[in-house]
Amino acid sequence: MAAQRTKARILKGFRDIFGATLVRRRRMIETILGVYERHGFSPLETPTIEYAEVLGKYLPDADLPEGGIFAFRDEKDEWVALRYDLTAPLSRVVAMYPDLPLPYRRYQVGLVFRQEKPGPGRFREFTQCDIDTVGTAQMVADAEILEVLCEVFEALGIRRGDYLLRVSNRKLLNGVLEKAGIDLADGDRWFTVVRAIDKLDRVGMDGVRDLLGPGRKDPSGDFTPGARLSPGQVEAVLRFLAVPRDDRGTTLRELEPLVAGSAVGEEGLAELAEIDTLLAAAELGSDRVIVDPTVVRGLGYYTGPVFEAELTFEITDEKGRVRRFGSVAGGGRYDDLVERFLGRKVPATGAALGVDRLLAALEELERGREKPWEGPVLVTVMDRDRLPEYVKIARELRAAGIAAEVYTGKKGVGQQLRYADRRRLPAVVIAGEDEFAAGTVSIKDLARGRVLAEQVDDRDTWRRERPAQVTVPRERMIDTIRGILGAD
Amino acid sequence: MAAQRTKARILKGFRDIFGATLVRRRRMIETILGVYERHGFSPLETPTIEYAEVLGKYLPDADLPEGGIFAFRDEKDEWVALRYDLTAPLSRVVAMYPDLPLPYRRYQVGLVFRQEKPGPGRFREFTQCDIDTVGTAQMVADAEILEVLCEVFEALGIRRGDYLLRVSNRKLLNGVLEKAGIDLADGDRWFTVVRAIDKLDRVGMDGVRDLLGPGRKDPSGDFTPGARLSPGQVEAVLRFLAVPRDDRGTTLRELEPLVAGSAVGEEGLAELAEIDTLLAAAELGSDRVIVDPTVVRGLGYYTGPVFEAELTFEITDEKGRVRRFGSVAGGGRYDDLVERFLGRKVPATGAALGVDRLLAALEELERGREKPWEGPVLVTVMDRDRLPEYVKIARELRAAGIAAEVYTGKKGVGQQLRYADRRRLPAVVIAGEDEFAAGTVSIKDLARGRVLAEQVDDRDTWRRERPAQVTVPRERMIDTIRGILGAD
Repeated sequence: MAAQRTKARILKGFRDIFGATLVRRRRMIETILGVYERHGFSPLETPTIEYAEVLGKYLPDADLPEGGIFAFRDEKDEWVALRYDLTAPLSRVVAMYPDLPLPYRRYQVGLVFRQEKPGPGRFREFTQCDIDTVGTAQMVADAEILEVLCEVFEALGIRRGDYLLRVSNRKLLNGVLEKAGIDLADGDRWFTVVRAIDKLDRVGMDGVRDLLGPGRKDPSGDFTPGARLSPGQVEAVLRFLAVPRDDRGTTLRELEPLVAGSAVGEEGLAELAEIDTLLAAAELGSDRVIVDPTVVRGLGYYTGPVFEAELTFEITDEKGRVRRFGSVAGGGRYDDLVERFLGRKVPATGAALGVDRLLAALEELERGREKPWEGPVLVTVMDRDRLPEYVKIARELRAAGIAAEVYTGKKGVGQQLRYADRRRLPAVVIAGEDEFAAGTVSIKDLARGRVLAEQVDDRDTWRRERPAQVTVPRERMIDTIRGILGAD
Repeated sequence: MAAQRTKARILKGFRDIFGATLVRRRRMIETILGVYERHGFSPLETPTIEYAEVLGKYLPDADLPEGGIFAFRDEKDEWVALRYDLTAPLSRVVAMYPDLPLPYRRYQVGLVFRQEKPGPGRFREFTQCDIDTVGTAQMVADAEILEVLCEVFEALGIRRGDYLLRVSNRKLLNGVLEKAGIDLADGDRWFTVVRAIDKLDRVGMDGVRDLLGPGRKDPSGDFTPGARLSPGQVEAVLRFLAVPRDDRGTTLRELEPLVAGSAVGEEGLAELAEIDTLLAAAELGSDRVIVDPTVVRGLGYYTGPVFEAELTFEITDEKGRVRRFGSVAGGGRYDDLVERFLGRKVPATGAALGVDRLLAALEELERGREKPWEGPVLVTVMDRDRLPEYVKIARELRAAGIAAEVYTGKKGVGQQLRYADRRRLPAVVIAGEDEFAAGTVSIKDLARGRVLAEQVDDRDTWRRERPAQVTVPRERMIDTIRGILGAD
């Protein structure tokens, strides 16, 4: 028999999420969507599965299996795939519904899937929470996305100084490359440069230098081919990446000579200058949003402003190491995505917010705090023949707005109390023959019971005194429990 | 160029959902989860993708491609699949985490996928909202699931009489089959009987008769093989299905002789009798929950009580036909699912609620009512050089709790008003040189504007009088808009 058992296992890179984390996540998402709606964005939901060609190939790590996506053939033998982001499906939607009033401003919360190498905190299925404005090339749309992200962080209680938005423009990089004599029409080489810069966090400036030049061997011995720029070209790019960035005005002035003379570079700079002005109008200074040329974003489809939002506060992990959370949101302008379908430009901009990383960060901030005693009141079952009575007690509690459940197993009362304790439920109701005869119930405050239990050594005293337990007339049950819940 | 365009298309059986429907769905789900939490259930989230063997094969239409599931091979060439329900993953979770306090009471909201024939209102990806209690064989758990479903409907504003829960027990059917001399150990034949009964709604009693006997040819000519029961056996099953069911007590009494002498049948009846008593304690009479032997459920894994919840109110569809919505939730007891993993029984019961069908039903109830003018206030852009000023106006509105957006496109003010009108936004703010010089803003009430526009024939009068538009000092902007929003 044992050999025939199915093994209970989960795919690598996937996970189960339980209880309190999900309750917090739901609240967090409500807060985020509240900000989105306050800015006039309206919700959209698209299928999890799309035709592979509709999604396109824009992931940075095209060397991964299936280009990093989960793809398979449908019953008609066409390639379909689980979406890897919410942007490609949005452009499909805009192309399919010509009657959508433009600019179309939508938000979407949904799961996305990437067949990447899993790692700590790196999953193959995760929740994104996007906003986008489609159908306008105006910078006011980009500036608003940045404004929304700032408002989201502050609505979640993350204060100025604990987060930072960094914005750049792919046109700036193109200007620098153009001035250095690099052919922008060579798409593969251009994307190799973008990916090299995007790896700055992981490989450092020397690594980027190698990846822009001949290539880089990583500590494991794996070799990543480089963009084969000349040493002079590499230096031009590195100079661009090294521009000071404490203050938006200063950065913009320093960038000016680096792109002067390149039409595309100057256009990128002018766009950033307009964003700067609009951010200032929204009272968002360089303590919240900086201009940072090292931001390029790994996805292939961006065409203009690009940005990342990062949490800057430090946390001490369970091993005592000081860590930062890094990027929790990113986005930019993608003016060509809808064009793939329609043959004409429908410019667009937006951001994706990584709900799970943001939640992990907020949970880290709260780590160490004792878990609260919360959840329903457990109505214990002392006498199974009286189950209908216990059902009525639970109903009475719920009618008063108190979450309550009748114990549904078949263990004894002692075990039921342990069950409530393990679940850290706030209180239990106990009623047996005596209570029913007297029209009373006994109520135990589990949080207080736990505290008192640590103060009493003498088991007999404990049993006799039943600390944190009171017997009250049935009509005082609700008030007594409210008192316990309120004190928590 | 045109030939290279990607076609913007969506998979058959999948769909996009927009705006107001999603807002309503979010509210609906909040209400449902509120009921679940009031009963002490706590959330769980599991991956969308699982190993195929972990999910098992329990779908009724095993003749469909891949047995009705979306399956593919992972990078290690193992079969994985998109989950087709939330129950199989739950049993995997219970088997994987031995420390979970039992009974484990969880709810889960999630997308499930079925490669079934799509049809009107029948999608291949849909949202379920489950509750389950795992780790107890006690009927109080099953009765509670029914109680929760009743509370969900009533919390959603569906009144007694507009919904009906129907409960039966697979053990009853097994008792009837046993007494008719049918070998219960022949699993394939048994499941053919279950599926025959499950098709009652679609094929009628005569169709069931055929499917229990030699088989049935449907109007298209397709032949479905039957269970090949003898005529006497078929009649025994049909007698069981025809038991009167207006009143739980009567039904239970009528069922007694049909299962008397069969241990499993009598056990099933006793279980239903206990559920009946507990429902009565929860004040749920036969106007809310009936016993109905025609309920068997199509999924293979149920072992005891099974139930369905149906909306009974009639709606008139857009073609003037009177329709009912039918089943929106179902479930039952599945005592063997976890055993597949652990080799020992972990009894469980629960229900799945079809969020999309329920929402469609609620929307039908509201069909015909005029769509409200809602959403953000649009701050129009009369003068692009003053964009920072418009950004400030929008911020001021939001700070007062009013959703607001600055127009992000580049059309003129007339087009901007049309854009607001098409989106049915409640109001627009207009400010040009005059307003800025005078420290005022103009505000237009779009809903009222629409009404007035229908009363005025004379275009010149209309232009001169600008009905539903007022110009107020900037400091009166918030109050004026609140007045418009409040009047809506």
